[in-house]
Amino acid sequence: MHGGWLAIAGLGPGSEALVTPEVSAALAAATDVVGYIPYVRRVSPRSGLTRHESDNRVELDRARHALEMAQAGRRVVVVSSGDPGVFAMAAAVFEAVEEGPEEWRGIDIRVLPGITAMLAAAARAGAPLGHDFCAINLSDNLKPWDVIERRLRLAVEADLAIALYNPRSQARPEGFGRAIALLRSCCEPNRLIIFARAVSTPEEALRVVPLAAARAEMADMRSVVLIGSSATRRVPGTSFVYTPRKVTG
Amino acid sequence: MHGGWLAIAGLGPGSEALVTPEVSAALAAATDVVGYIPYVRRVSPRSGLTRHESDNRVELDRARHALEMAQAGRRVVVVSSGDPGVFAMAAAVFEAVEEGPEEWRGIDIRVLPGITAMLAAAARAGAPLGHDFCAINLSDNLKPWDVIERRLRLAVEADLAIALYNPRSQARPEGFGRAIALLRSCCEPNRLIIFARAVSTPEEALRVVPLAAARAEMADMRSVVLIGSSATRRVPGTSFVYTPRKVTG
Repeated sequence: MHGGWLAIAGLGPGSEALVTPEVSAALAAATDVVGYIPYVRRVSPRSGLTRHESDNRVELDRARHALEMAQAGRRVVVVSSGDPGVFAMAAAVFEAVEEGPEEWRGIDIRVLPGITAMLAAAARAGAPLGHDFCAINLSDNLKPWDVIERRLRLAVEADLAIALYNPRSQARPEGFGRAIALLRSCCEPNRLIIFARAVSTPEEALRVVPLAAARAEMADMRSVVLIGSSATRRVPGTSFVYTPRKVTG
Repeated sequence: MHGGWLAIAGLGPGSEALVTPEVSAALAAATDVVGYIPYVRRVSPRSGLTRHESDNRVELDRARHALEMAQAGRRVVVVSSGDPGVFAMAAAVFEAVEEGPEEWRGIDIRVLPGITAMLAAAARAGAPLGHDFCAINLSDNLKPWDVIERRLRLAVEADLAIALYNPRSQARPEGFGRAIALLRSCCEPNRLIIFARAVSTPEEALRVVPLAAARAEMADMRSVVLIGSSATRRVPGTSFVYTPRKVTG
């Protein structure tokens, strides 16, 4: 059977208004949509489209299932929230290709970018990532905690703004508190911290606090947390937070 | 006069298929579009819409002009390529608000995110930013070169993948070559470097080389350069490059 393909698509942070036309077109052409339950449910059902919902933390199984279907001639979209290349399904699919049968290397695979959580959150807050910045996944499912701590320290030393993905979940209630303690040990107490939850959805909540007032409970599974650089500040008389473009040595 | 607003919008990397519906709706409602010449020209002319083109490197003047018009009741969209919050106009607008007259603080300002160059480039290449990464602006117009070098060294020490924005221009022909020399001094020679030019446009070009073969001339004003982490690799038998999700201490 011919004509199968696999698109790894980013649905953006939640709102339909942030889904690119490229992703909408792929979904309209698909026979199968594969992904974590809440993301697959963002795709409207229609005749001719099978929606395959899978649980969290089974990324490789999900990737293999999608590759098998594409190899069999189906038109498959793997959906991620945000951008599929940022702590999401794209890397898992390429891992599965690398470990999989030779024939998977010939599958027509495309990655379709999306609006990732840190950029949606930054847009709501103002321009906190307007200067050099980094993105660090705080989940220690796939890396040891000491690697996370080391990267946080070096990012602060480099004076980058920092976006923390997956800051906190029920399975990992401790790590984010340790990250806050680490930041307190190397940043000034009025460093600005932005807690952004479910941006662009009806549950959106944005909160800006100085590091001294930050508490782990301010983040959950649907949050991204932005740590300002030493230059990040509020625009007086407004709710906006931004990082100036100019740095002096 | 009432009802004026200012939207700072990201047009994505070039293709219309990567412009969000939110940005398209703002452009459809606008009376004025403001931006650097090639970006404003991406907005189709129509009756009732005035397009204000400005030269490069006049970001603050452009921001003030947009704020003045919004304050006077016009519906103004400031356009950037990519995402407006990543080395683009959002920070410039907030700088202008901070330095400007008190009344500008009450202007209805929204930032509308877009697909930023590094994520479009990463999607084309595979998933090179699939693990922790950073974004560094290589332009030294607004920061001293030693700050750039220091950040590059620390990013390599943290083993982040690195996206370099504005790697090279006619006004700054030297810096990127120095950055390559620095990377050679602290990374292995087979570290993967992705040169991505004008992604999603007809002029798109993607090139993946080991660090030992990277030359400054491979980048220009329309390029973003992605430096792999120590774990970034090719999927054998394919053109894809990715960074595995898993790290061992």
